[in-house]
Formats: sequence, structure tokens, C-alpha cells
Amino acid sequence: MKLCRFNDQRLGVVLGDEIADVTSVADALPAMRWPLPTTGDALIAALPKLRPAIERAASAAERVKLSAAKLLSPVANPTKIIGAPINYNDHIEESKKDQGIAHGREIKTIGDWGLFLKANSALVGASEGVALRFPQRRNDHEAELAVIIGERGSNIARADARRHIAGYAIGLDMTVRGPELPSFRKSIDSYAVLGPWLVTAEEIADPNAVDFECKVNGETRQKSNTRYLVYDVDRLIEYASSFYTLHPGDIIMTGTPAGVGPVKPGDTLTVDMAGIGHLSVAIRAA
Amino acid sequence: MKLCRFNDQRLGVVLGDEIADVTSVADALPAMRWPLPTTGDALIAALPKLRPAIERAASAAERVKLSAAKLLSPVANPTKIIGAPINYNDHIEESKKDQGIAHGREIKTIGDWGLFLKANSALVGASEGVALRFPQRRNDHEAELAVIIGERGSNIARADARRHIAGYAIGLDMTVRGPELPSFRKSIDSYAVLGPWLVTAEEIADPNAVDFECKVNGETRQKSNTRYLVYDVDRLIEYASSFYTLHPGDIIMTGTPAGVGPVKPGDTLTVDMAGIGHLSVAIRAA
Repeated sequence: MKLCRFNDQRLGVVLGDEIADVTSVADALPAMRWPLPTTGDALIAALPKLRPAIERAASAAERVKLSAAKLLSPVANPTKIIGAPINYNDHIEESKKDQGIAHGREIKTIGDWGLFLKANSALVGASEGVALRFPQRRNDHEAELAVIIGERGSNIARADARRHIAGYAIGLDMTVRGPELPSFRKSIDSYAVLGPWLVTAEEIADPNAVDFECKVNGETRQKSNTRYLVYDVDRLIEYASSFYTLHPGDIIMTGTPAGVGPVKPGDTLTVDMAGIGHLSVAIRAA
Repeated sequence: MKLCRFNDQRLGVVLGDEIADVTSVADALPAMRWPLPTTGDALIAALPKLRPAIERAASAAERVKLSAAKLLSPVANPTKIIGAPINYNDHIEESKKDQGIAHGREIKTIGDWGLFLKANSALVGASEGVALRFPQRRNDHEAELAVIIGERGSNIARADARRHIAGYAIGLDMTVRGPELPSFRKSIDSYAVLGPWLVTAEEIADPNAVDFECKVNGETRQKSNTRYLVYDVDRLIEYASSFYTLHPGDIIMTGTPAGVGPVKPGDTLTVDMAGIGHLSVAIRAA
């Protein structure tokens, strides 16, 4: 199932070139009061339970044209957005060669560097676009597979990792290059794009064998497959959860392959990912 | 006013050695439904409006002994927890000398490094304690002034920074030492301690002139004053908001002075901060 959020915070199921509006199903989620629970995204947490109702609603629902919808982040309320640095060998190689990427840092391995965080305030959906806050600096696209956690876990064993996954999406880990720490440079408002929708886990037979391609204005920039991940999806879940608890809706951007490069206002960035779909994002100046 | 959260998510005003239970005031905050607003902590955002009601309620409220209360993080729902690295010159000096801190990294300046993030899932209050997840590694205390944002802002000018502050608390930026990125090493569950309560902004005449002292088992480890901050409170707000939007309840841990050092299970860590109070935190193995 392809689950999206669209227009004025509506919930939808993507069916071909249409969206079935299943917002009414979310009414089953209880109202919350301050202090809000810190246990993750309420819809993602309830997804296994709500799924039959979503499917029933979708079959009878009003439909809107996908091409006319404003696509928001398919996860509304993650507790954290996690990034995996230098997680493709060919990106490690290009980073070592290009001081525009490395900025004097010694490029080591993900096992040395660990993971980083992107601010929740940076999260947007495909139709919201990316606003370059420092257009005079180098602002790079980093296209990647994003994993959305479905079930809370801490110290998750590699062998159990898959059952903690709610689904997948395309992630854009937008990055301003420079000397600053990744959690600062990659947390600018709109620099965490998630979309175009969430594909539930059972639709992707093997998240470690997913083809994807990123283009800027139609020109291929990145083309790879998640089989080249240094830490694969299962290992990333094991590794992340060895430091902190993962909650439903937490997003792991799994890392980007070679081909990262600058975008400028006016560019259109697209990512096609097998089994997920097509993401199109407009770049503008902030 | 000293505002706390205690016991089973109750809201309180600290009056001497007692807490006045003003939980009822939070009932004025509207119920929320998924998707939750991403505009920050609802109580902190409403504080200016709720304050007269809180003060009225406090004068008539049931009281509990402070010493018997379980103190939670005074902010329930931050959108992000921001850290300021190498923001005291004496800590920069000790970091350069001690490879147990630097781990081969070149220690530059906060203007080079920028800010980092700590995971929201790491946030705890004083009474929840710190659980060392890797007790065989070096786990350091970093005591600091924490600033809690009250009013949304982006690209905030230094001269306007103060009006975006809701209040202050003591922050413990607990840190496992190692080669990993700060946003990973400092995001272990329970590694962001905020407390013992929030002191509203008007009670601290100058946040850039606050004495504080951190002890482990009664022995002084850190003793400084925020006047030695490299980027002071106003500059940190200006700097952070030049990259991303700050929301009510966002926490800025302003950085730590010299004297950082290891803690071990069984230790008691205390911080006294002028105008704020006394924080006592028990260290245990996870």
C-alpha cells in the first residue's frame, strides 16, 4: 500500500494516478493533550491495526488526481530523523577526492563516524520543495532510500530488524557543504525531504536491493542500488538502536551513493526508486 | 516563576521546598489530533497567556514536598534539542590536550563547527537519572546553562534574541567519548537531562553572567560562569536561527566549561546554578 499525506493534511492511498481520500480513518486515533506522548507518530504506530479500515475506506473513497495534489511528508510526527554518513563506498571515494565535500575532514568509515541527526523542523514533503538558505554556498542533493520505523525498539538484533520497519520512502538528505557538523548543515528548514509517499514494508521484497536514480533538470546525477550500502538496512537499524530507542515514525535516511552535486534555485530534482515511485522537488531560494 | 513537571506528568510551580500543583491550568490547552502540529511545545507556546491562571492556581493549589517529587523534564515536547560544541575557551584547551576528548579530531571553533542536535528521545528530567549504555567507555558530564525558546523565530537578530526566550534550566549534555559524530554520541537514551525546573526569563537578569558548579559525589568538577561563553546566549539564538526555525520549547544547551570528566554507575552528579537551583542526578548502568 502507498500511503500519502496531501493537500490540507489529508490522508490518502495512492492508486495509479489517483489518491483515495481515507482521512476519515485517522479519526479513530484518540485525541491527545499536552504533554503529548513521546512514543512516536500515532498513525504509523497504529498502522497494522488501522490497515483493514484504510483498505475498506480506499475502495469507496472520493478520489483526487495525484498530479493535482500537494504531497506532504508521509510521516507527520517523527521523534527523530537519522542520517547515515559515508555509507556507499563510491561516495566515500568521491568525498576523499573533493574538498568541496570533505572540507578538511578525514573521511573514515560509518563505524567510526556513527549516525547523525537532521532536525525535525527540516522535514517537508515533495510538493513543498527545498528552499536554499545560503544560495551562495554549495548545496548538494543526496538521494537515498528512507526507512520508516513501525515498531518501537532498542538494542534490536540484526535478525529482528525487518519487523521494526513500517515502510519505505525516498529521502533527500539536502546538504549545505562546509566545515560545520552534519547535524547543523543538514538541518536547514526544508533540507529533509520525504516522499512522495510511504510504501508499506511488504511491497519491497528486499530493501537491500533497490535501484534508484536521481536527476537534476533531467540529467542523471546519481544512479545506484541499495546493495552497495556499506551498512545495509538491517545493520543500520541494529546500529541506531544500539545507541537509542527507535520509535514509530522515526526516519532513517540510509546514505547516498556517488554523484552528489550542487543544485540552484530554479532546478527540478527528481528521484525514481524501484517499487516506490517518482519524487519531483522544486529548488528555490529561501 | 519556577515551573516544573513532576510525578505522573503533573504541572507545578516550585515555591520554596514545596510544589503547588497547577495541572488543572493545562486543561485550557486544546486537545490535539494526529497529525500533531509541528509548532513546538503547546504549554511553552501558551505560557505568556496562561501565566496569570498559573499564578492564581498556585496560590490556592494543593502542595507536595519538593523532596518527595519525581522531577521530569520541564519541557515535555521540544521539536529539537540543540547543543553548542567547544563554547568555552578553557574547554577548548582541555579538549586539545586530552585525546580522550578529542579522539583525533582537530578542535577548531564553534564558528567552524556550528551546532549539533541531541535526539528528543534522549530527554529526561532530574529524577529519571542517567543510564550509561556503554559503561566500559568514557561517559562524561557536561554541565551547562540551557535556554528554552518561547517564541517562534527564524533569522533572529542578536538584538531581538532575548524576547524569544521563555526561560532557563540546567542542562546536562551527557556524552560518551569516542570517534562518532556528536549527534550520535550525545543522543543515547537519558543523555539529555533538563531540570530541575524551568525558571522564567524575567528571573535571570543576564543569562550571560550566571555562576554554576558541577560536582560528582560532592567533589567539584566544573565551576564557571556563562560570561566565559564564546558565543553568548544572544549569539547562539542568532546563529541557530540563521540555519533553522526555532520553535517554542526548543532547548539550546549553551556549551560546557573545562572540567568535564567521567562518571560511573552509582555516582551522584549535582549542578548548582545561580538563580535556577540545584539539580541532582543519579548515574546507573543501563
